[in-house]
Amino acid sequence: MKFSELLEELGKGEYHNSLPLAPHCNPNITGVAAIDQAVSGTLSYIEGAKYAKFLTQTAATALILPLDETLQKTALDLGIAWLATDSPRQLFAQSISLFYQPFHPEPGIHPTAIIADSAVVGKNVYMGANVVIQERVKIGDRACIHPNVVVYPDVEIGHSTILHANCTIHERTRIGAHCVIHSGAVIGAEGFGFVPTPQGWVKMEQSGCTVLEDGVEVGCNSNIDRPAVGETRIGSHTKIDNLVQIGHGCQVGSYCAFAAQVGLAGRVTISNQVMLGGQVGIANEAKIGDGAIATAQTGILHDVPAGEIVSGTPAVPHKLYLKASAITARLPEMYQLLKQIKNKFKFM
Amino acid sequence: MKFSELLEELGKGEYHNSLPLAPHCNPNITGVAAIDQAVSGTLSYIEGAKYAKFLTQTAATALILPLDETLQKTALDLGIAWLATDSPRQLFAQSISLFYQPFHPEPGIHPTAIIADSAVVGKNVYMGANVVIQERVKIGDRACIHPNVVVYPDVEIGHSTILHANCTIHERTRIGAHCVIHSGAVIGAEGFGFVPTPQGWVKMEQSGCTVLEDGVEVGCNSNIDRPAVGETRIGSHTKIDNLVQIGHGCQVGSYCAFAAQVGLAGRVTISNQVMLGGQVGIANEAKIGDGAIATAQTGILHDVPAGEIVSGTPAVPHKLYLKASAITARLPEMYQLLKQIKNKFKFM
Amino acid sequence: MKFSELLEELGKGEYHNSLPLAPHCNPNITGVAAIDQAVSGTLSYIEGAKYAKFLTQTAATALILPLDETLQKTALDLGIAWLATDSPRQLFAQSISLFYQPFHPEPGIHPTAIIADSAVVGKNVYMGANVVIQERVKIGDRACIHPNVVVYPDVEIGHSTILHANCTIHERTRIGAHCVIHSGAVIGAEGFGFVPTPQGWVKMEQSGCTVLEDGVEVGCNSNIDRPAVGETRIGSHTKIDNLVQIGHGCQVGSYCAFAAQVGLAGRVTISNQVMLGGQVGIANEAKIGDGAIATAQTGILHDVPAGEIVSGTPAVPHKLYLKASAITARLPEMYQLLKQIKNKFKFM
Repeated sequence: MKFSELLEELGKGEYHNSLPLAPHCNPNITGVAAIDQAVSGTLSYIEGAKYAKFLTQTAATALILPLDETLQKTALDLGIAWLATDSPRQLFAQSISLFYQPFHPEPGIHPTAIIADSAVVGKNVYMGANVVIQERVKIGDRACIHPNVVVYPDVEIGHSTILHANCTIHERTRIGAHCVIHSGAVIGAEGFGFVPTPQGWVKMEQSGCTVLEDGVEVGCNSNIDRPAVGETRIGSHTKIDNLVQIGHGCQVGSYCAFAAQVGLAGRVTISNQVMLGGQVGIANEAKIGDGAIATAQTGILHDVPAGEIVSGTPAVPHKLYLKASAITARLPEMYQLLKQIKNKFKFM
Repeated sequence: MKFSELLEELGKGEYHNSLPLAPHCNPNITGVAAIDQAVSGTLSYIEGAKYAKFLTQTAATALILPLDETLQKTALDLGIAWLATDSPRQLFAQSISLFYQPFHPEPGIHPTAIIADSAVVGKNVYMGANVVIQERVKIGDRACIHPNVVVYPDVEIGHSTILHANCTIHERTRIGAHCVIHSGAVIGAEGFGFVPTPQGWVKMEQSGCTVLEDGVEVGCNSNIDRPAVGETRIGSHTKIDNLVQIGHGCQVGSYCAFAAQVGLAGRVTISNQVMLGGQVGIANEAKIGDGAIATAQTGILHDVPAGEIVSGTPAVPHKLYLKASAITARLPEMYQLLKQIKNKFKFM
Repeated sequence: MKFSELLEELGKGEYHNSLPLAPHCNPNITGVAAIDQAVSGTLSYIEGAKYAKFLTQTAATALILPLDETLQKTALDLGIAWLATDSPRQLFAQSISLFYQPFHPEPGIHPTAIIADSAVVGKNVYMGANVVIQERVKIGDRACIHPNVVVYPDVEIGHSTILHANCTIHERTRIGAHCVIHSGAVIGAEGFGFVPTPQGWVKMEQSGCTVLEDGVEVGCNSNIDRPAVGETRIGSHTKIDNLVQIGHGCQVGSYCAFAAQVGLAGRVTISNQVMLGGQVGIANEAKIGDGAIATAQTGILHDVPAGEIVSGTPAVPHKLYLKASAITARLPEMYQLLKQIKNKFKFM
């Protein structure tokens, strides 16, 4: 694809670009690459000072640049075709789609798929080999169910939703439209409900259900459990990475992002646009406000107000965490100094 | 179900209840709900001060209350039918079972299940689509094996045990009666046994086996590995949540509960009734005594005595952890103060 | 097997052994066992002071000892057959293989395996029940693909590689020779790539691929994601335990070992022979040098130089961590002492 064609494809917004400045600069673009791995012919991007240094070293033929005239001038001098935007990463995401179409099987039901008579399957659905669809399941139009997926009874799958190979959807789960459930994920299994008694554990049956609203993604081998009563709910467009645990009865808002290995205990309430770093843990019934952020490995025991950034275990405001962490390394010298003071002034 | 019938069904013990006090108060109960989500017609429960505040707000028609006369009086005044017990949560667990029966397929072998000739399958077993049962496997009566489960050779599955869809049971594993293995769990796979040598890793074959005693539950996508020699063993009625890792050769006692994302390295020994919070990690060969508790995210490097509660990484007694954590937030001011003292008194 | 035969089988090196000293000492060896679980007839081993104490208590009939004449003398006195080496554990690993052959099915394609016409399958391959092999997949000679594995299009699997039951290999992944992918693992699924915009998350298509070089092992329910562009790569002979997350675009070297529940965020670079303890987390784009070690639960935010041992969150050199941790328990007394000083000298 010529660079000029690429500009046209991306050209829903207005971008500065090098063509008016250098009309001869209209190379052929054959693919996309990271700035530090780019080869000749590829389009790459620069976002952030960390990557700006690669500009003079890259073999990329074209670049998406930030709105930075110095970088643009350098690119021009180097003979690199460029366009500029205030969000290079986002435009790069769009560019990938010009060169790459994800694997998406054609509609059709594989003869080995096993579908209960009472199930209702929409139009233009793909169902791969060995898929098992149990009683009274409803599957929306254009859903894509990869091989070896098992769907328990009374599940609803919205239209255009993708279930990847070897995932399992348990009874009564309702998954919205345009969701993606990745391989090995388990949605709607029994919550961990055991009541301690003098005679041992009494199992609390998990009679509730799990609801994923539209546009939710759940990563590989992640689990979202159903509760004893009521619902576990994941709000629309929330994105969940791999190996995440969402306990029974959690209420998660919309447009959140949870990194890998996050764990939510039971009945945690999370508002909208909350970001949780990798391996964050949240204790039973904690409430997290709108737009709060927890950095990786944070352990949250109590409520977090809207907009707060927290870190550490137990979680504290991020700025305090940074200060306290910096001093932790000085604890040995603090301790020695205190010993000297104690000896000198004869404290007990 | 009338409230009076519900009382009769639950009435194995002796409960105080509102009927003698308010014989007209015999509403129809149509379901169960959490106190803060209850709608008219439902039965809910209150346990702990945290939930008592919901009494005046709830729409529940009936409640299981603690042995607290003030709450009981308030319920009566509000026209809410109630019964009281010293363990509301346990009685609520029993109540759920009056309104809800978990999905449990009828006995029968799906025609696509593949069963080795040398396998022995008990009576009244359910086996779903695409189940694979390999050589010399023995399956007890009334076992329930959901679709797409794979059982490797020489495994024994006890009676009334449930294997959920897409779990995998590896060679020589012995699972007792009344166990539940949830979707995606892997039991008895090879332990992580590699010996470092100057020529690289030498693989130590994992010739041992994995044993789950009666009444064990293993959560979704959890793993229990087999050892190089001997056994990995999980004691009876121990409950393991999702995404838990139990390394090769661990010996776990009875009636323990491990929350999600717990990790036990190799040859850890855990006694009875031990409780581990979410994301707890335990190092190789540590020994944990009867009834010990580790709070969430604790990192245990050394033995923990019976009855101890530990927290933090590295784990310390919980009370000390609370004190030290509270002071961590004051480290910056402590550091500043020490600097002043140092300057004033000219310490080095 | 007679002890003398065992010596012969192991005898590629030169070992001291008890036969010349005690030629009558040639017992029959029937199996292998851990030193503290050994029964009569078994071979065990001692490595490290921790296990030396078991020498006088063990019921083992034969032992692999370190090059320690005191232990050897004691064994002789106790009538235990022994051999000695500078690496008892390694020799024990070899000994296991004399008594145990891991389950490895005979070559052959199960009739229920579903193989796309365009797939190319090598010689002497085993393919179990319900395996699904999609378009243009290439499978090397002697590969062993257990039941219910799903392989997406355009994957390459090297010769002699084992895919355990219920694992999933996503599109374009290239797996080398002599690799082992354990049950439930997911290789090459989409990385977690969402660009935040005022209109919500924009999905960045993950057009890259995942490469596992020869001799890599990936544990149960672990995930290795593919990137937006370029490769995620795991170097030869790197061993990865269960429930590990490797994010999109990570570059991992050779001969590394990652314990269970490790998490690598996106574009982490790890050099050769790096060891990560259980539940270690590494932040986006951090670089870890040759031979570095992170102890369990370490949280790495920044680069770690070659050969460094790090601990804690945020990670610091291990020795400093040990000192600081020891003092953490003394924080309450330090705080009290500082309060006294402050009061006495009237600091603010």
